[in-house]
Amino acid sequence: MTKYDSGLDRRPANFQPLTPLSFLDRAGRVFPDQTAIVHGTARRSYREFYARARKLASALERRGVGRNDTVSVMLANTPPMLEAHYGVPMCGGVLNTLNTRLDAAIIAFILDHAETKVLITDREFAPTVKAALEQAKVRPLVVDYDDPEFPQEGERLGAIGYEELLAEGDEAYEWLMPDDEWDAISLNYTSGTTGNPKGVVYHHRGAALLAQGNVITGGMGKHSVYLWTLPMFHCNGWCFPWTMSVIAGTHVCLRSVRQQAIWDALADHSVTHLCGAPIVMSTILSTPADKKRRLDRTVEFFTAAAPPPEAVLAAMAENGFNVTHLYGLTETYGPAVVNDWKAEWSALDGAAQAAKKARQGVRYVALEGLSVRDAETMEPVPADGATLGEVMFRGNVVMKGYLKNEAATEEAFRGGWFHSGDLGVMHPDGYVQLKDRSKDIIISGGENISSIEVEDAIYKHPKVSAVAVVAKPDDKWGETPCAFVETRPGEELTADEVIAWCRDRLAHFKCPRHVVFTELPKTSTGKVQKYVLREMAKDA
Amino acid sequence: MTKYDSGLDRRPANFQPLTPLSFLDRAGRVFPDQTAIVHGTARRSYREFYARARKLASALERRGVGRNDTVSVMLANTPPMLEAHYGVPMCGGVLNTLNTRLDAAIIAFILDHAETKVLITDREFAPTVKAALEQAKVRPLVVDYDDPEFPQEGERLGAIGYEELLAEGDEAYEWLMPDDEWDAISLNYTSGTTGNPKGVVYHHRGAALLAQGNVITGGMGKHSVYLWTLPMFHCNGWCFPWTMSVIAGTHVCLRSVRQQAIWDALADHSVTHLCGAPIVMSTILSTPADKKRRLDRTVEFFTAAAPPPEAVLAAMAENGFNVTHLYGLTETYGPAVVNDWKAEWSALDGAAQAAKKARQGVRYVALEGLSVRDAETMEPVPADGATLGEVMFRGNVVMKGYLKNEAATEEAFRGGWFHSGDLGVMHPDGYVQLKDRSKDIIISGGENISSIEVEDAIYKHPKVSAVAVVAKPDDKWGETPCAFVETRPGEELTADEVIAWCRDRLAHFKCPRHVVFTELPKTSTGKVQKYVLREMAKDA
Ligand SMILES: Nc1ncnc2c1ncn2[C@@H]1O[C@H](COP(=O)(O)OP(=O)(O)OP(=O)(O)O)[C@@H](O)[C@H]1O
Ligand SMILES: Nc1ncnc2c1ncn2[C@@H]1O[C@H](COP(=O)(O)OP(=O)(O)OP(=O)(O)O)[C@@H](O)[C@H]1O
Ligand SMILES: [Mg+2]
Ligand SMILES: [Mg+2]
Repeated sequence: MTKYDSGLDRRPANFQPLTPLSFLDRAGRVFPDQTAIVHGTARRSYREFYARARKLASALERRGVGRNDTVSVMLANTPPMLEAHYGVPMCGGVLNTLNTRLDAAIIAFILDHAETKVLITDREFAPTVKAALEQAKVRPLVVDYDDPEFPQEGERLGAIGYEELLAEGDEAYEWLMPDDEWDAISLNYTSGTTGNPKGVVYHHRGAALLAQGNVITGGMGKHSVYLWTLPMFHCNGWCFPWTMSVIAGTHVCLRSVRQQAIWDALADHSVTHLCGAPIVMSTILSTPADKKRRLDRTVEFFTAAAPPPEAVLAAMAENGFNVTHLYGLTETYGPAVVNDWKAEWSALDGAAQAAKKARQGVRYVALEGLSVRDAETMEPVPADGATLGEVMFRGNVVMKGYLKNEAATEEAFRGGWFHSGDLGVMHPDGYVQLKDRSKDIIISGGENISSIEVEDAIYKHPKVSAVAVVAKPDDKWGETPCAFVETRPGEELTADEVIAWCRDRLAHFKCPRHVVFTELPKTSTGKVQKYVLREMAKDA
Repeated sequence: MTKYDSGLDRRPANFQPLTPLSFLDRAGRVFPDQTAIVHGTARRSYREFYARARKLASALERRGVGRNDTVSVMLANTPPMLEAHYGVPMCGGVLNTLNTRLDAAIIAFILDHAETKVLITDREFAPTVKAALEQAKVRPLVVDYDDPEFPQEGERLGAIGYEELLAEGDEAYEWLMPDDEWDAISLNYTSGTTGNPKGVVYHHRGAALLAQGNVITGGMGKHSVYLWTLPMFHCNGWCFPWTMSVIAGTHVCLRSVRQQAIWDALADHSVTHLCGAPIVMSTILSTPADKKRRLDRTVEFFTAAAPPPEAVLAAMAENGFNVTHLYGLTETYGPAVVNDWKAEWSALDGAAQAAKKARQGVRYVALEGLSVRDAETMEPVPADGATLGEVMFRGNVVMKGYLKNEAATEEAFRGGWFHSGDLGVMHPDGYVQLKDRSKDIIISGGENISSIEVEDAIYKHPKVSAVAVVAKPDDKWGETPCAFVETRPGEELTADEVIAWCRDRLAHFKCPRHVVFTELPKTSTGKVQKYVLREMAKDA
């Protein structure tokens, strides 16, 4: 023990668990009159938000929720969803947000796997939830949320309403700090794009760091106004429910991502930031001109899930948005990688700018390591923009692990890095670019074929509206590309035409040998289920 | 063990020590061509800054510096000072920045107490350092820094120059992460306002959190430009050497805080932020009009050490600055409290705004707790803006403790809070306002008298240029106020006049019984040494 250790231990005065819960405590005390939440005609100040979060915590505790008990919620982007992000962990519980687009069977699976004690559910989702509860083995306390702003028709399933539950709580409740910053704060199931959903456990430390990371990465100023176009059930809304308390900003709720509602919210509430997959940008852009509203400032749009296409970027700029491209996974608390834009790139032409922006980028300040490595040897690939490797993450905004799944956790963390399952290259300037998912890459005659590259080529065909390319087992080549194509309404296309189109644009070995015209199977988050297509390809 | 703990341990993939060192690693890789440092005519990019920091770390390691070895530096706000903030801890060392205004005896005391292994010293300070080395028992490796931009005359004291040392290092050096985020990163001696300096130990965790806290609290955007008017030897420059790497901003160095140099830097380098005690604001404001430069944007000025007076605030606004009032101590990594301004206050008149701004404020997001408590009972005082208590801090940006001083550490941390030694009140809105240091409060006939309140009254006398009020022991009253006054050049004043002046403005028991006309003794940071005055008061 050196002089710098002796008599210099951690103690309450100088060591406190990192947690996003204390952000709301601060906002509630320092800016009690600031608007925290806008929902329809309702407004909630930070005083009210903080008081209601404590009431929820207190009520849950009185109902028996304690440390490490799971509270599941089936909610749209409404105020109780925000309250749950604080109220559930404030009594030591773990928040499990359910994807509202899942079907009853998967929800039943999740409730059982998570051992849900309390389920808060919006009446909108009553049919699915009712069926799920019938299938599930657990018997949680069911709490119905009746949205006073947007009344829903669904059946009441529970013994108690959300406001009744809250009324049981004490707004002066002294909420619990986590015992340790490593304690679980939430449980997020993966989308299931690559198979069965896994329960990703977040801890207080990571949530606090990523929430602040969003402020820093996004350059978000005090009292920013955030529009909820991103589902909060997805990776805890990329931690933005916690981020906004850091800057005492305003949440603008949105029950459903509709064109008029988005544009009205943007204009009426002077929104400064919003997030979403590219589909949200399409929704914004395809709004009829007479429904669009005049925005009095550039709005920051953070997108992830896929690289933003050039045409979309140009149209977004014209419509008054600045788009930042983020990348991450459920396992990394949402975005942990940012296409950190360089001033000099703004001098490039549109296509060159789009090419720069298509790259996923560099680590958040909150993420300690981002690397592209050979998954076998764990050696980093050369930074040549060409050599394919697996994208790997390391740091404090990587999940605690998969719930009750040590094998998957070990597998994901082998070699000291989190294996994303995404394949990419490292550019000479240190920016990462994704090429494919490792399960989606096609290996034909020993050569890697990026399914994305083939899809990009086919997408350019004017008669194609959607396409997905997967591997089909082949005796001679090992695998060959098989394309599944959706044509535009009223258009006809043959397999030979598609193959010929590809031959003009791609190396021959990359061209599909088989083409199937069909509707693409999708997950509840709208991602194509390639594992389903791989099954179909076997018989194609 | 619950399901949320089992199989979900910390490992390298999901747990890394928090450290500000990784901020420079990121800036150096992501923004290698961005200007990191401006010094005179010299410019250093982030690529160079990061490479030189690693070279320094490597060279120090080769010279035998290892984990928990102290490297002291006697440097102005020059590039090696920034390099030392990274290079020293990158090889596991602990950075001890010496206050360049200290005298040889105290520096010798510090070198011995810190067990300094290497001393990097600017030729400007050679006379003091030479004397200090003669008095000290330790025999560090002495490295001379010869500023190529502003050559200094002082004798060379060491065996090696700074650039020579760097040349021994390897810029590809794989720098060491701390073994634990609780490891020491730096050692800062207190000013000694209240007695002998104590060695305050900072850890990586706190430094990383406060560095990011500055970004969030200051709303500092990417590539901000920071002017070094605050000495970096003071609380590691409030952690701004680390803060700027978070946003890949530019440091503008300043060897000495001179009027022309400040205004030129502000204008020539488009400075966005700077910090300093009120004296820096006075320096800026008293610059002759023809030396002031036109600024093309509002500049953010963060001030601490004393509340900014109304006249100064008004003049700063006229001169194009927005002033934010911060408060902290060496023990809290510099500022950990902010006068978080509310939009509605901007509608108040100048005097009312100044009164709001004079309050020290609320906790940084990075500080978990700020409280005003009875030091005996540890009960919080009522939030009535009147009841005096001791200001206390709790959280991750509170020091590790005092080096080799367990008694002082225990005393400072008793009851689970860090005791600041500052007395203040809690306003009903949760903002703290300082009234005095606990050692400076005067207790007369059982009543508390704030020395600051009496000083404020005497300061208003047109013939007074400076004043300090301390307790004089008194048989009847216990203590009575004794005022030490400096008069303006050419002005005469009597004790009776001062007392009469006070009687018109203060309750009688608060008026000084004794008035002494003398020059006020000051510490090297310019703070009045009240403990010296208390000795003098005994005989007054
Ligand atoms: N900016 C982006 N560009 C391209 N792909 C992205 C981007 N952001 C996210 N992704 C893709 O989304 C994945 C993360 O999605 P998420 O964690 O929500 O569920 P999923 O991986 O689709 O589901 P599952 O893990 O159950 O298969 C990443 O691994 C990556 O393949
Ligand atoms: N905004 C402020 N308003 C009033 N006083 C302040 C402010 N900021 C700092 N101070 C004073 O400065 C003190 C911190 O100063 P610092 O840690 O630099 O050394 P010091 O306390 O003067 O020295 P020592 O602890 O050796 O006596 C605080 O305890 C407080 O008394
Ligand atoms: Mg996944
Ligand atoms: Mg002090």
